[in-house]
Amino acid sequence: MKELLSGLPRSWIHANEGGESWSPYDIVGHLIHGEKTDWIPRMNIILDQGVNKTFQPFDRFAQFRNSGDRSLEDLLNEFTELRLANTDILRNTELGWDDLRKEGIHPAFGKVRLKELLASWVVHDLNHIGQLCRVLAFQYKREIGPWTEYMGILHWKGSHGR
Amino acid sequence: MKELLSGLPRSWIHANEGGESWSPYDIVGHLIHGEKTDWIPRMNIILDQGVNKTFQPFDRFAQFRNSGDRSLEDLLNEFTELRLANTDILRNTELGWDDLRKEGIHPAFGKVRLKELLASWVVHDLNHIGQLCRVLAFQYKREIGPWTEYMGILHWKGSHGR
Repeated sequence: MKELLSGLPRSWIHANEGGESWSPYDIVGHLIHGEKTDWIPRMNIILDQGVNKTFQPFDRFAQFRNSGDRSLEDLLNEFTELRLANTDILRNTELGWDDLRKEGIHPAFGKVRLKELLASWVVHDLNHIGQLCRVLAFQYKREIGPWTEYMGILHWKGSHGR
Repeated sequence: MKELLSGLPRSWIHANEGGESWSPYDIVGHLIHGEKTDWIPRMNIILDQGVNKTFQPFDRFAQFRNSGDRSLEDLLNEFTELRLANTDILRNTELGWDDLRKEGIHPAFGKVRLKELLASWVVHDLNHIGQLCRVLAFQYKREIGPWTEYMGILHWKGSHGR
């Protein structure tokens, strides 16, 4: 994330694809909120005995309240710290095959397995790195003239965080 | 590029989206060929006086001949070196506004300006980083179960290098 975004001009970081779509700055805030409330907390709900297995709904708009006027560098540093702490937790949990098949209740999907949650954590990253590339590229679609034809990412229709 | 791909298992790096589509390994080879034959060499054709202004067609399949059985780490290192050398050349060329408006002849598009070529170099990176994310995510589309619905990148239809 840092390698892709660090040092870019403010205007590029805060530009979106129009309307209610998300800027790179918004996307980083969304990823921070995921580290805090989604992946590892949901893993713990699945693994902890005796707790209600239903996940809290994920707030897809939390970043609009939480990022305030913090700098992107600040958000990138927070994301890096949270991610390192969360991957440490994951490693230290030493999951076995039986654990990976354990279930939680997703508020929209119903029963999901831990292995699906953890695979989704990875794909969620890839989804948003791809989205970051799309939003950054979008700002240059006029500047590249006829090359737009060759840039598939400019023809990928996304929406908000998806 | 290194941050995204380095250390991933061979099976993930060499898997594509089916048929003639490109794997992450193929994409890195394509980016290497671009550094060698596309962006800076075309800039030089535009800027050099007295040369034919028509670009050589870019070979979009060169990586299938050139990468051989080299490791991904080897390719990533070569890409990094070539990119650093090329951005050094770009900086040392000290382009002025007049230079950016100079023209070359693209084999498919006809007249293009240097500023369009250079902006396309950036968007081309973003396009292929997005594609890398898409191809990596594709291999996990079954493992994530119901989360596929939320992952826009899995619904982005690309083709080959585009």
